[in-house]
Amino acid sequence: MKFSLIINVLTILLLIIAAFMLIPAGIALYYGEITSLWSFIIPILILLPLAALSYFSTQKKRDKTLSPRDGFLLVTLAWVSASALGAFPFYLSGAIPSYTDAYFETMSGFTTTGASILTAIEGLPYSILFWRSLTHWLGGMGIVVLTVAVFPLLGIGGMQLLKAEAPGPSVDKITPKITQTAKILWLIYLGLTVIETLLLMAGGMNLFDSLTHTFGTMATGGFSVKNASVGHYDSAWIDWVITTFMILAGMNFILYFKLLTGKIRDIFLDTEMKAYLTIFLAASVAITFSLVNNGVYRNFSEGLRFAAFQVASILTTTGYATTDFDLWPAFAKIVLFLMMFIGGSAGSTGGGIKVVRIVTLFKLAGRELKRFIHPRGVFHLRLNRQVLRNDIISVITGFVFLYMVALLTTTVVVAFGGYDILTSFSTALVTVGNIGPGFSRVGPTMNYAFFQGWIKWFLSFAMLLGRLEIYTVLVVLTPWFWKKN
Amino acid sequence: MKFSLIINVLTILLLIIAAFMLIPAGIALYYGEITSLWSFIIPILILLPLAALSYFSTQKKRDKTLSPRDGFLLVTLAWVSASALGAFPFYLSGAIPSYTDAYFETMSGFTTTGASILTAIEGLPYSILFWRSLTHWLGGMGIVVLTVAVFPLLGIGGMQLLKAEAPGPSVDKITPKITQTAKILWLIYLGLTVIETLLLMAGGMNLFDSLTHTFGTMATGGFSVKNASVGHYDSAWIDWVITTFMILAGMNFILYFKLLTGKIRDIFLDTEMKAYLTIFLAASVAITFSLVNNGVYRNFSEGLRFAAFQVASILTTTGYATTDFDLWPAFAKIVLFLMMFIGGSAGSTGGGIKVVRIVTLFKLAGRELKRFIHPRGVFHLRLNRQVLRNDIISVITGFVFLYMVALLTTTVVVAFGGYDILTSFSTALVTVGNIGPGFSRVGPTMNYAFFQGWIKWFLSFAMLLGRLEIYTVLVVLTPWFWKKN
Repeated sequence: MKFSLIINVLTILLLIIAAFMLIPAGIALYYGEITSLWSFIIPILILLPLAALSYFSTQKKRDKTLSPRDGFLLVTLAWVSASALGAFPFYLSGAIPSYTDAYFETMSGFTTTGASILTAIEGLPYSILFWRSLTHWLGGMGIVVLTVAVFPLLGIGGMQLLKAEAPGPSVDKITPKITQTAKILWLIYLGLTVIETLLLMAGGMNLFDSLTHTFGTMATGGFSVKNASVGHYDSAWIDWVITTFMILAGMNFILYFKLLTGKIRDIFLDTEMKAYLTIFLAASVAITFSLVNNGVYRNFSEGLRFAAFQVASILTTTGYATTDFDLWPAFAKIVLFLMMFIGGSAGSTGGGIKVVRIVTLFKLAGRELKRFIHPRGVFHLRLNRQVLRNDIISVITGFVFLYMVALLTTTVVVAFGGYDILTSFSTALVTVGNIGPGFSRVGPTMNYAFFQGWIKWFLSFAMLLGRLEIYTVLVVLTPWFWKKN
Repeated sequence: MKFSLIINVLTILLLIIAAFMLIPAGIALYYGEITSLWSFIIPILILLPLAALSYFSTQKKRDKTLSPRDGFLLVTLAWVSASALGAFPFYLSGAIPSYTDAYFETMSGFTTTGASILTAIEGLPYSILFWRSLTHWLGGMGIVVLTVAVFPLLGIGGMQLLKAEAPGPSVDKITPKITQTAKILWLIYLGLTVIETLLLMAGGMNLFDSLTHTFGTMATGGFSVKNASVGHYDSAWIDWVITTFMILAGMNFILYFKLLTGKIRDIFLDTEMKAYLTIFLAASVAITFSLVNNGVYRNFSEGLRFAAFQVASILTTTGYATTDFDLWPAFAKIVLFLMMFIGGSAGSTGGGIKVVRIVTLFKLAGRELKRFIHPRGVFHLRLNRQVLRNDIISVITGFVFLYMVALLTTTVVVAFGGYDILTSFSTALVTVGNIGPGFSRVGPTMNYAFFQGWIKWFLSFAMLLGRLEIYTVLVVLTPWFWKKN
């Protein structure tokens, strides 16, 4: 393990995060939020000498190639340490008096989960709220770069499926390729952010609200600066803009690559995208009928507006709400419950199992059914016209099983704190799945403040586990990882 | 498709069931239950000429070899038609005034689920209660023969794993092998039934109660002749006898084969058995601590008695209860909830996913984690020291995925009737898993009477689906099945 190099890269990452902290610091200065200003400046001031020390003491190593194993440790530590640093402004400003709570909130931000321990959001300093939403945006950016540019090369969670662009990976060539891909992704992400912000402002939102809600949308995060989330604005325009951009953020970013390079035909042939949009439309329409039939909304178009928003929010694992869906009729709730098992597309900022893995498992199950009738037949699984190799299928089935184990383990841990089955299970679904709000005591009008401290730490871990595609974090915890070979 | 042969075999099967109906008919005569007596005699009298007609009109065909495809259809129709016939005594006697309810109850019996629509059990005629419990016993016998002797040859749901005895299957040789294996299984099943009945009588139960509860135990069914289930007797001896026999019935019957042939060493090396007993012990102890800590029971031994009974009941998918576990502390309930995802051993009368499949998936996930660190390493999955072939692993992962799809589909269907998430989801868990009682409105003191008729039909299908290892039923519903090739 190249610990020295790992620390070196982590240092750079923390410095980048510290640099981003200067934006909310500027906002604090602008609004005259002196306590908050210091709560950003102090961690930066403490970090700087430490970073310099760490950077120069580790920089002399010449070998700059990270092995996959180094990569797993680095990525895991990146989220852990970024959250540790990012929690300080919340803690020092007094906005979140407990460091446990501040850490939970920051991990929830960087993992783009959006589960919050805050009981009252309005009234907090602008700079603090901005930082809270910015953690989403940075975390979302980070995960897109990882899942599109890095994970496919490492083979994490079946992400090889994304490797449409790359002609056979080679660990030595990773760095330049990543840098180039990351730059393009960054521009796409930034471009979509600008467009959404402008569209929200066109709907009457002020710049601050537009920007923070755009951060939460593009990252499929879900932190809002209003207690009533997006429901606060009660505007059909704003609802539809955010619905649209949640769906866009939950799409594979490789599709935007292809759009930019004119490969439009590939986009329309993409199996995952077709499945993703079909699920979104089918669930929205089904819920709309349920809502209108039960008299929750007067007409189809109003029902559709609320149904589509909530479906997009849960399916893409954003977690915004325009209504308390925990009060919806049983059938509408169950459809949302189903969405919690799916998640966004691979290579998006969305969490969850991901549509492509579900599609693969359906294809696998279909093949097995066919094999029953034709035991000697050879049936290849294909995705986007390419044959899926057996080892990739194994990675995917292993992933989904571990995801289920993670869900049930989290359920047991939460229940150990004395919570009922629905609260425990839906807490597991929405933390491992990076969604945010669930049902019962973690419903959309609730928050995570009431959980015991040790549960909050475990849930922080659960969010990280889900965000980094399970394997990355889990592998670091195995004895095999630490064995020299 | 050899429809003629299939009808021929189905006819024989229905005649066997009719023959077994003579036992409760005898009981009706003994107790002077005249209405009930006729409710057994009438279906037999109607069946006989139909059967004779069907038997002789189909018997002339000489080719008596069933293809796997014929087998799937035959097995599915066997349960469907047995339930259709077996429902008549309930319906005609007036014990269950609706045929929908009677069919549900009978399917629940033959699939060894134990979900009941009866609101008051005590007071029903002895003959009717005996028939109800006998459907369990027959269904349990049927499933053991299928899973140990037939499914492995057909490759259903990864059941090839059971094929320890057989030196390479050949469809032509199935019949003599099945007959011989079935005879031994029958004797083991009968032997265990006799022993449990005697032990229950030793505990003070009368012959009728002992026999009916033994039927429910050996089949991991769960129908009781008392409203309060086994809790009615409030006897530590009876609780422990039934706990022990539920665990024995949830074990792979091949192990009893091996015991009889002196291969004791194989038994102790059996991975599934070790996992199964470990799960049972760990869950029982964990729940005992939760119960004693929360003051539900005064001491460890009393807590263990109730914990072990309920864990054995849910894990083996029996469904007996000695207490209303829906009132237990959150943690104890969650452990039972977890057990609902596991089920008994393959080749037992137990339902659910089955321990061996869960073990296989854990091994698969572990291998995938190892492959992350050593991407070029070759890691074979082994079970009982044998390498698992890739196609068997695919069958198993396909099975578990289809099981999850079946669970979520059933949840949605039930929720469509207007029931809350916990009721809908636990109804799915306990019907597809052939367990019986779940949580909330289908808790151990509740019953299934309140569901709409169409939900009861769907749940009858869900029980069948789970009982016949998903594939068998599902494959019959695919278009590929009916295509000529």
